[in-house]
Amino acid sequence: MKKLELVYEGKAKKVYKTDDPDLLIVDYKDDATAFNGEKRGIISGKGSVNNRMTNHFMRLLAAAGIPNHYVEELSDRETLVKRVTIFPLEVIIRNIAAGSFSKRYGLKEGTVFRKPTLEFSYKNDALGDPLINASHIFAMNLAVPEELALIREYSFKINDLLKSTLMECGITLVDFKLEFGKAPDGTIILADEISPDTCRFWDTKTGEKLDKDRFRQDLGNVEGAYQEMARRLLG
Amino acid sequence: MKKLELVYEGKAKKVYKTDDPDLLIVDYKDDATAFNGEKRGIISGKGSVNNRMTNHFMRLLAAAGIPNHYVEELSDRETLVKRVTIFPLEVIIRNIAAGSFSKRYGLKEGTVFRKPTLEFSYKNDALGDPLINASHIFAMNLAVPEELALIREYSFKINDLLKSTLMECGITLVDFKLEFGKAPDGTIILADEISPDTCRFWDTKTGEKLDKDRFRQDLGNVEGAYQEMARRLLG
Repeated sequence: MKKLELVYEGKAKKVYKTDDPDLLIVDYKDDATAFNGEKRGIISGKGSVNNRMTNHFMRLLAAAGIPNHYVEELSDRETLVKRVTIFPLEVIIRNIAAGSFSKRYGLKEGTVFRKPTLEFSYKNDALGDPLINASHIFAMNLAVPEELALIREYSFKINDLLKSTLMECGITLVDFKLEFGKAPDGTIILADEISPDTCRFWDTKTGEKLDKDRFRQDLGNVEGAYQEMARRLLG
Repeated sequence: MKKLELVYEGKAKKVYKTDDPDLLIVDYKDDATAFNGEKRGIISGKGSVNNRMTNHFMRLLAAAGIPNHYVEELSDRETLVKRVTIFPLEVIIRNIAAGSFSKRYGLKEGTVFRKPTLEFSYKNDALGDPLINASHIFAMNLAVPEELALIREYSFKINDLLKSTLMECGITLVDFKLEFGKAPDGTIILADEISPDTCRFWDTKTGEKLDKDRFRQDLGNVEGAYQEMARRLLG
């Protein structure tokens, strides 16, 4: 598989064409940003951890019946994925109140929900990725009801699968962000990444944060947290 | 019915006890606020227009099977209503993009939706009444699913009824805010007001704004717009 020209560079990943029009190569960077790009930095080794951890989860989810864009890990930082048209929506599942949720609704970080919550935000940097609900999504033609129903169903299943896998490693899954896309044949599949950049992971015993909040909140030992997550999950 | 002590004073209304513990008197003020209280002013005659217009709509909705808190108009500005425990939620129905929606999602004011949208905001001045979705509402115990389903159903029915009534007066109903409460017997009923303070009304022919946006946006002739709405609707 030939790595051809760069088609997209995001905050944490570069995406390249290949000689197969239906496949792309994702290349994970060590660059870190937070607060809609206001805070910037480098987390050494992050690209490798995020690539390998995402692939680990994607293989696990595929085996459990959640279709996703993963094809093959090419190197420590590079993965071959299926080309999809991403819905301009972030799906956020929360098991415990934290981050923007706690701030938005004045609910103490650490409040455990009886049932997980699901929210959508409209992927639009200029607007600050605002919260959006299903009726708005339909009004703005960002997805149709059948698509959104499937995305919801997949997201809650993914939560169950990730929660139990992480529990075995002594990690509590607080919340996480997913992105879905449409393959050329119209199938809806999970895309993007599942990593300490896009999830909140707390050590179940100590409550220690093992995710990007260490960078956002200047908690120190940011690299150590990413490596610790890789150690627990990937061995 | 005796008007006893003041139990609550809001931005646009005072509420008094009566000698019946299940009934309250609402007294509409001319005070106007916008942008979460940042802008303040007086709109002469507003209290009377909002009181009479709300009562007109409440009688119409009751006749169409939407239970609400209206009991009796006592004067130009005062109305006897049923005491309810208000859900800490604002329900906003939109037929056309405007205001905070246009700003939040970058969608041009005046964009007509194929289907109306419904959104909830969490009534909390300190937090700026943030947008909230059903899964958050359940997680925070602000309402249970059956209650929310009924509130949704009533809200869309109210939209249909108000839209057609206003259309006959040459007014386009752009969007509006509702509040619901629980009566002592557990019944869910519509409460609060339906007025140019809580709705966007556009003249169907000219597009002229006949609501509180004239105050928010310093468009002039604010009092005239309230009087024009009263004239068209109440004769």
